[in-house]
Amino acid sequence: MKIGIVGATGEVGRMMIKCLDELDVPVTELCLFASSRSAGSHIQFKGKDIVVQELNADSMNQKYTALLFSAGRSVALNYAPIAAAAGNIVIDNSSAFRREDAIPLVVPEINAHVLKGYRGIIANPNCSTIQMVLALFPLDKRFGLEKVVVSTYQSVSGAGHKGIFTLSQQRSGNPELGPFPKRIDLNVIPQIGAFQDDGYCEEEAKMHFETNKILGRDDIKVSATTVRVPTYYGHAENVYAEFKKDIDLEEAGRLLTFSPSVIYYQDGYITPAELFDSNDSHVCRLRKGVDSKSIVFWNVGHNVRLGAATNAVRILKHLIEN
Amino acid sequence: MKIGIVGATGEVGRMMIKCLDELDVPVTELCLFASSRSAGSHIQFKGKDIVVQELNADSMNQKYTALLFSAGRSVALNYAPIAAAAGNIVIDNSSAFRREDAIPLVVPEINAHVLKGYRGIIANPNCSTIQMVLALFPLDKRFGLEKVVVSTYQSVSGAGHKGIFTLSQQRSGNPELGPFPKRIDLNVIPQIGAFQDDGYCEEEAKMHFETNKILGRDDIKVSATTVRVPTYYGHAENVYAEFKKDIDLEEAGRLLTFSPSVIYYQDGYITPAELFDSNDSHVCRLRKGVDSKSIVFWNVGHNVRLGAATNAVRILKHLIEN
Repeated sequence: MKIGIVGATGEVGRMMIKCLDELDVPVTELCLFASSRSAGSHIQFKGKDIVVQELNADSMNQKYTALLFSAGRSVALNYAPIAAAAGNIVIDNSSAFRREDAIPLVVPEINAHVLKGYRGIIANPNCSTIQMVLALFPLDKRFGLEKVVVSTYQSVSGAGHKGIFTLSQQRSGNPELGPFPKRIDLNVIPQIGAFQDDGYCEEEAKMHFETNKILGRDDIKVSATTVRVPTYYGHAENVYAEFKKDIDLEEAGRLLTFSPSVIYYQDGYITPAELFDSNDSHVCRLRKGVDSKSIVFWNVGHNVRLGAATNAVRILKHLIEN
Repeated sequence: MKIGIVGATGEVGRMMIKCLDELDVPVTELCLFASSRSAGSHIQFKGKDIVVQELNADSMNQKYTALLFSAGRSVALNYAPIAAAAGNIVIDNSSAFRREDAIPLVVPEINAHVLKGYRGIIANPNCSTIQMVLALFPLDKRFGLEKVVVSTYQSVSGAGHKGIFTLSQQRSGNPELGPFPKRIDLNVIPQIGAFQDDGYCEEEAKMHFETNKILGRDDIKVSATTVRVPTYYGHAENVYAEFKKDIDLEEAGRLLTFSPSVIYYQDGYITPAELFDSNDSHVCRLRKGVDSKSIVFWNVGHNVRLGAATNAVRILKHLIEN
């Protein structure tokens, strides 16, 4: 079981290494890759010291059980095809391949079936999409999802180390904006990614497209507004959803209770600061929307774990076990 | 022009005093009232030093041009009726009277007409409602508002001095929760006020009811989720709205541009940290919702000014001028 991690020194890369251990993936050899800037650094895995290598085409053109990529769009576009051409499974956390018809976009609890007989590049969805679709999946199956209006409260770790560093610096009086378009400390910013012609920003467009692709639909209407807030870890979302059928709230709660990787709160609620190391999608404040066919709920998930590293490692585990 | 302010030492009370000056209300005598705890403190108004008096029934049973109350529900329930019975106009910022049929709930730019020939208690709406209905009003008139899904990002000053003090203390390492149900620093809390049987909290129920009453409707379906975020001043809201008619986004933008107390951004957007002393409702990121009959926009307003003190003083000005 030889696993490679590309982008091993980033927020998500480091968490992937942690998750391989926590989720008991029987790794026998772990190869870590990063840019020349980070190559040479040391990372511990199961008590062993591993030296991070510089990413290059040669190292991708070798045989691995699987490669996990978390190095951004352009690195993925350059190197994932090389690794895949060498016969490897590549699980890529960037947005580079998600929209390609031939590339599976997978949340294993929902659509692992699309992986049957597949080899090559597999796309890991966007963080804010994963936690939401885990909650919507059982409700869609039972009641027929038609429309979603979602507003997010996304932590700065979604922008990686730089995001965390920038908030921490701003809290100490350094006004530099880092990766954010405006000050984030003591503020909220309704923009994640560049704006498109239709007025939605990239993060919102991802939620529109990926929700449909993961749920195997193309007709769910989604309007997302993605907002950066001054929290370090954990994304919160207010999800309003309309369905074809009348909703029984108790039944909806039961469906969520028995859904894998979902924790449903019949009473009380959770906030991002209370997530700790959770790998689940937390659903609370479930209530009627504006009529018998609509609901609204509060959804919290760890963006670096569930929204990125954990989902990638769960895809890997599914492939190993099947 | 003898004006009284009840709750003069609170966040909103102090801002009311500022707004009387800023909005050029021709005050000749200003009487300031507070609880016994704050009585005796000194407040400046137009270069004069005014001593805050302890609130009691006798002082309410006198003649004023108008009294502005911002002292919470129970003080309002105890003293506003005394002042009104003495023939005074009372503009009350609490939720005590908003739901009473006989009491006008007023945003003067929208429904000042309900004040014609009226004397007695006038209710000032909830902060998060005022900024939103100012934006929805011109759109409702033209396109016929049917449904609103709103998620808020509300600053700690909505909980008064205590809210501001608590966030500032938590930022310095003091973990006390103050008026909040959970830690607010580096967190977001989806609860403002107690939960009702239907799963909505009080702040949300206010937005449902008040939106209809102010717009003179009873059939607009509203689902609000009100969330406290770690900002000091300014509430942001993501507003999704459905209408009876097809929406032309350019026309909607024009209507907003020419609406009083609304600032519309055709490009770019504003965040709470950029509001400064604005008394307007800022509308930006206006775009299509999920179809031709729905829109979504980002709305920012100063909760202590527009959401409370400024609106109260604007009601007063309307009464004086008419």
